[in-house]
Amino acid sequence: MILINIGDELLIGQVVNTNAAFVGQQFTAAGFPLTEVITIGDAGDAIREALENAFQKSDTVLMTGGLGPTKDDITKKVVCDLFHRELVMDESVLQHVTDIFAARGMALTETNREQALVPEGCTVLPNALGTAPGIWLEEEGKVLIMLPGVPFEMERLVKEEVLPRLQARDTRHHAMLYRVLQCTNITESGLSDLLEPFEQQLPPELKLAYLPVPGIIRLRLTGESDDKETLAKLLDDQFAKLKEAAGSYAFTDEDLKMEEVVGKLLTRLDRKVATAESCTGGRIANLITSVPGSSRYFEGAMVSYSNEVKRDLLNVREDNLKRRGAVSEEVVSDMALNAMGLFDVDYAVATSGIAGPDGGTEQKPVGTVWIAVASPTRLATNVFHFGSRTGRAQIVERAAHAALNMLRIEIEKDLR
Amino acid sequence: MILINIGDELLIGQVVNTNAAFVGQQFTAAGFPLTEVITIGDAGDAIREALENAFQKSDTVLMTGGLGPTKDDITKKVVCDLFHRELVMDESVLQHVTDIFAARGMALTETNREQALVPEGCTVLPNALGTAPGIWLEEEGKVLIMLPGVPFEMERLVKEEVLPRLQARDTRHHAMLYRVLQCTNITESGLSDLLEPFEQQLPPELKLAYLPVPGIIRLRLTGESDDKETLAKLLDDQFAKLKEAAGSYAFTDEDLKMEEVVGKLLTRLDRKVATAESCTGGRIANLITSVPGSSRYFEGAMVSYSNEVKRDLLNVREDNLKRRGAVSEEVVSDMALNAMGLFDVDYAVATSGIAGPDGGTEQKPVGTVWIAVASPTRLATNVFHFGSRTGRAQIVERAAHAALNMLRIEIEKDLR
Repeated sequence: MILINIGDELLIGQVVNTNAAFVGQQFTAAGFPLTEVITIGDAGDAIREALENAFQKSDTVLMTGGLGPTKDDITKKVVCDLFHRELVMDESVLQHVTDIFAARGMALTETNREQALVPEGCTVLPNALGTAPGIWLEEEGKVLIMLPGVPFEMERLVKEEVLPRLQARDTRHHAMLYRVLQCTNITESGLSDLLEPFEQQLPPELKLAYLPVPGIIRLRLTGESDDKETLAKLLDDQFAKLKEAAGSYAFTDEDLKMEEVVGKLLTRLDRKVATAESCTGGRIANLITSVPGSSRYFEGAMVSYSNEVKRDLLNVREDNLKRRGAVSEEVVSDMALNAMGLFDVDYAVATSGIAGPDGGTEQKPVGTVWIAVASPTRLATNVFHFGSRTGRAQIVERAAHAALNMLRIEIEKDLR
Repeated sequence: MILINIGDELLIGQVVNTNAAFVGQQFTAAGFPLTEVITIGDAGDAIREALENAFQKSDTVLMTGGLGPTKDDITKKVVCDLFHRELVMDESVLQHVTDIFAARGMALTETNREQALVPEGCTVLPNALGTAPGIWLEEEGKVLIMLPGVPFEMERLVKEEVLPRLQARDTRHHAMLYRVLQCTNITESGLSDLLEPFEQQLPPELKLAYLPVPGIIRLRLTGESDDKETLAKLLDDQFAKLKEAAGSYAFTDEDLKMEEVVGKLLTRLDRKVATAESCTGGRIANLITSVPGSSRYFEGAMVSYSNEVKRDLLNVREDNLKRRGAVSEEVVSDMALNAMGLFDVDYAVATSGIAGPDGGTEQKPVGTVWIAVASPTRLATNVFHFGSRTGRAQIVERAAHAALNMLRIEIEKDLR
């Protein structure tokens, strides 16, 4: 299965290609792993070449983008040329587009009408969330699926229209399975050395991959086979060996993000958390609340970006701010302890650091971040040096993940 | 210029390919536009095929990923095969890796030593931030650049090592220029109809692209030519016409994000802002503070996820919470007005909505978000319906951008 993403905005980097990640996740899980992703601009020649090339390597090609009121022409024409079809007006799509515009009290323009043009003989995949329909073209065992590039329109079409159709026509029963083990407190190469004996005995059907994300190394054990049952058993056996080899460096065998791990722990203990954030600017709260149902354990956050807000709203002692500076163990400790009282929670996480690019000093260079976690019985503090050349966004991201990891460690102590 | 990204994690969607966007931005701006991005897994055959294919279409190929302590072997061997080189130990890299480990008080392992193996005759691009070096291979006018996949290591190498070298050997003086106009309060197709006369008179050297992002349509006018001066003049003339055609729908001709536009306005007026967030969970604060220097105009945020926090820390009236519900005009108004006083700021933005997937009702389905902006002279409120099928992350993202857009509109009123 090959994915082609069309869009000048992707090539010039104005938009990050999140569609490729979504498609990769969904199709892998459904047993149609991607072998390649090709990103090209909105140009007829490039689209034609990419399509021809892709169909030489794969019978199934998914194309996103290149549809929509202002881009339709090129993509649809290339596809019609290649499949020797005419563009015809689809009445159901025309009605759908007309309805959408009527609901907004607007009349249909010529540009909008053209969105209802589709290659003759294709199957229209209705797009409930937008005007450009999905298109399914099948010929001599080859399938071309065209979807709009707007993420949430594309995502719904993949789940509700594309995957069910692919599964219905799939006779291979091919399986791709994987398990994830997440480790922390060790470097990638340290872990690699530790796992060398495990890797040497690993059967060739299975593959171990290292995926470093901020503060964590994700280990992914993958297998592909036409015999799903045998593969599942083999994967289970080897995954148990992997867990044993990784020992205490492993903290979860679930494929969850750190904010999801923390959410599960808090739910299990029926405890609540709040944050008091300076340099992370609300990013920890944003991560925690990205998890559905987080309102059960997240009370709120105080983002105290100025010293006045730290002092007046978080009761950080003036003396600590003056003598130790805002980026200090004393100040994050005040922040965490006072946030615990203010929000009436069991755990509070606090950060204060220098995200840069300015504001660094010799004693506290850009990238210095103090983090505190207050729990019912303890106060844990730690200083991190994420490096002055790391960049503002990356420092915030690493600090937020380090804070969540410290929170996880403190909650786990209370589980024992 | 073709970019090849290597990594199983990209194909299975475990990691979003932000490297492609970064490379696209940097290389486009420097005059080396990407014509294609190819993403493949960590497999020798796929790497070899992608490389051969890419060099048929382009003299310059940049490859990211496939390097690092646990992945080195495959990629480097394929490249050595293809370029008929041997792998040799580079003493400067070995010293660098040794130093990094010594600084952490650790001894070098065999896996780490192998990171210092590079293709004979290549130029090593020193990686100050990690152990895997960048590699520059040049032969018969073809250039292959290999960089590690870790974003901040790759980013520094691109800026400090790769682009200066490419520019030094560039004799084409080829230019790619673009200008961006950002519009709001109009649909993509409505804008397309409005701009039809403009597009019809547009010279063939220039291209207009529509890039919808939450709440905004970005128009990008692009031109490519070997005569930079003439192109620049043509682009200026046509960009002026575009601005005239877009009229009051255009709100900025700078290629800035909404949070940067807001930051510039606040800096210009020397005024301050705070946020009071419920459903956006700190995302607005996170966006505002992603801008370097935002501490000059951002005081802080109160993320009030529970009703208790809304009542006790933001003084939202119990009566409004009970009779109107947390997602109501009355409650966001209380939140915004009280946050203005609490943080002692000139503007306060408040949100309350249902991000889902649960919590929707018939009157207030998932996707309903109330937003308020309090300013020195006014209180603006608005309700948005982002759709119950849009997904939690997308609702938060759209609500945060809608809130920033409302803030922008209120600040601009005060500029008149």
